[in-house]
Amino acid sequence: MTKRLVSTPKKDGFRMPGEFEKHEKTWMIWPEKADNWRYCAKPVQKVFIQVAKEISKFEPVVVCASSLQYQNALKSLGNNIQVIEMSSDDMWIRDTGPAFLVDDKGNLRAVDWEFNAWGGLEYGLYSSWDKDNQIAKKICELENIDLYKIDDFVLEGGSIHVDGEGTCIVTQACLLHKGRNPHLSKNEIDQNLKNFLNVEKIIWLENGIYLDETDEHVDNILHFIAPATVVLAWTDDKNDPQYEMSKKAFDLLSSQKDSKGREFKIHKLYLPNPPITVTEEEAMGCDLVKEEIPKKKGDRQAASYANFLIVNGGVILPIFNVKEDKIAVETLQKVLPNHKIVTINSREILLGGGNIHCITQQQPLKVTKK
Amino acid sequence: MTKRLVSTPKKDGFRMPGEFEKHEKTWMIWPEKADNWRYCAKPVQKVFIQVAKEISKFEPVVVCASSLQYQNALKSLGNNIQVIEMSSDDMWIRDTGPAFLVDDKGNLRAVDWEFNAWGGLEYGLYSSWDKDNQIAKKICELENIDLYKIDDFVLEGGSIHVDGEGTCIVTQACLLHKGRNPHLSKNEIDQNLKNFLNVEKIIWLENGIYLDETDEHVDNILHFIAPATVVLAWTDDKNDPQYEMSKKAFDLLSSQKDSKGREFKIHKLYLPNPPITVTEEEAMGCDLVKEEIPKKKGDRQAASYANFLIVNGGVILPIFNVKEDKIAVETLQKVLPNHKIVTINSREILLGGGNIHCITQQQPLKVTKK
Repeated sequence: MTKRLVSTPKKDGFRMPGEFEKHEKTWMIWPEKADNWRYCAKPVQKVFIQVAKEISKFEPVVVCASSLQYQNALKSLGNNIQVIEMSSDDMWIRDTGPAFLVDDKGNLRAVDWEFNAWGGLEYGLYSSWDKDNQIAKKICELENIDLYKIDDFVLEGGSIHVDGEGTCIVTQACLLHKGRNPHLSKNEIDQNLKNFLNVEKIIWLENGIYLDETDEHVDNILHFIAPATVVLAWTDDKNDPQYEMSKKAFDLLSSQKDSKGREFKIHKLYLPNPPITVTEEEAMGCDLVKEEIPKKKGDRQAASYANFLIVNGGVILPIFNVKEDKIAVETLQKVLPNHKIVTINSREILLGGGNIHCITQQQPLKVTKK
Repeated sequence: MTKRLVSTPKKDGFRMPGEFEKHEKTWMIWPEKADNWRYCAKPVQKVFIQVAKEISKFEPVVVCASSLQYQNALKSLGNNIQVIEMSSDDMWIRDTGPAFLVDDKGNLRAVDWEFNAWGGLEYGLYSSWDKDNQIAKKICELENIDLYKIDDFVLEGGSIHVDGEGTCIVTQACLLHKGRNPHLSKNEIDQNLKNFLNVEKIIWLENGIYLDETDEHVDNILHFIAPATVVLAWTDDKNDPQYEMSKKAFDLLSSQKDSKGREFKIHKLYLPNPPITVTEEEAMGCDLVKEEIPKKKGDRQAASYANFLIVNGGVILPIFNVKEDKIAVETLQKVLPNHKIVTINSREILLGGGNIHCITQQQPLKVTKK
């Protein structure tokens, strides 16, 4: 039913809204991958349920679950969350789901990027990823909306952040990594983003978060909370490799203006210090497979408070049971005074390589502007 | 999201509409079971596509396809048919899908019968059937409608025909078969049907079609085409075991009135004569499994023209490339003069043990009556 469009969103007047704009609902994928989630994903499922239930207090939630886990998901998630069958390779719907687009006439469309598990057979994190690569299409088919696709362009939703008004922020570490689009120049990638997100300006940070296995997705280091306003993961610890990475991002953003010529307001969001590391217990319980390097006790995690989700009237914020949690809540509450800040201890999600933003994908409300 | 209701449709004022009432859409399941469909279901998929495309000219069609066959279904079915992922054990959505119910206030609900593959481990046609037994629920979850379920009551959608005005026709051969509800008396089954279909009268035919492996589903021997009006599969050949079976049905219906006190108009729908049998070629290409007795050349098939589907403004009629096809079309056109009669050579579907009515499930249009 879903048509594949040969034009571009830019030509057709469709744009990707900021996450802070109103949502129709949020999509998630039920976790079950036993080589990434310890003890057959039972501990992370508990946290997943918490995240889904908290979001569902602000807006509808749809959870995609495989045939084998459908019943478990359905019973675990309770009566307020819709569960539909969909197979996947893992739960990272931020990266595998559609990038929804709206126009001003009340229409919804989406972009379906090519997905290769963050780097393909050579650099990627798992294989195969063919089920993941079908998720955006399947969701569009369910929603009966048409989609744009560039076959030769690999991108994950977590590697871009937009303000909905013409500006997009990315990291070079990720988008120029040779595991994705080695056949394209930086300029060509820049142009693809402009055409398919319908933006005028791409800001290329150098880095994301230290040791982030996505090759430093932008959504782990910063978050647009309003046009021309971001929170940025930060540390004052100059001995931490993250210091330079965050500092360069701060300096670049301070020196740039957005597509509308506005300066950025940058709010520092302090990272856990010392960094979060894997405990002995957390390192156990994963199936062993060829591609995966098992986590060891003491491994540093790419924990960041920037990996939250903005929902209608709220923020679902990952915390780690450390002293910086409180500062993160205060920072967010200050910059989003009308949002309810809901915290979830998300160490289990972090163990799999991401956080709350990575496991959610908002579907914007259709808008009609006269 | 779907709530399981503890009441009954009768108490709540919900009824199952006649198939001849207006539809919202029709649901189907993509075939792939290699032990029931020759050559990995490729020949039957061709016919399935024809059926789906013909229906889609009258009303929307949604096809449920497994993860493995999703891409094939999507590409094969073209742009006018919606494809969603759903696992199943086979394609018989008439029997495994929800029985949709409407009230007079524009609401939709459904009954989810217990399904045991036409008789369970001892008498059934395959195992396991756990995916099939989840289909009704999954569809309700997708449609966001609440459902009624009686756990201990086994029933298939093809074993009932309703007029939407208080009358239901079934066969004793099926509903009293010990593979389904041996713990229930005929009276108790009668009462369950009355409560869950919201009807006042159940007419219990003795038989269906000779050698029908569903234990003689009613939907293979007759079809309600309007209140108090049925077509009945018929033969004048007294040497055919079917003669007595159809004659007893005719006599019973002639002697009974429907729930509103009306006499039945019974239109004879002549069966192929000689009966359709399996060809040598048709007997080849199925995987061998424990439960299945492979078809042999010359096996008689339960071919019947009554196994059609009424859609909005049309009839999708199975034909078998025999001389009686023409008579069937003429009969149907005469009794449904305002419907377009579309014929499809459905020998491939027949080989699997059913026909067009068995592989479709209509979702009624919501109605508001003042």
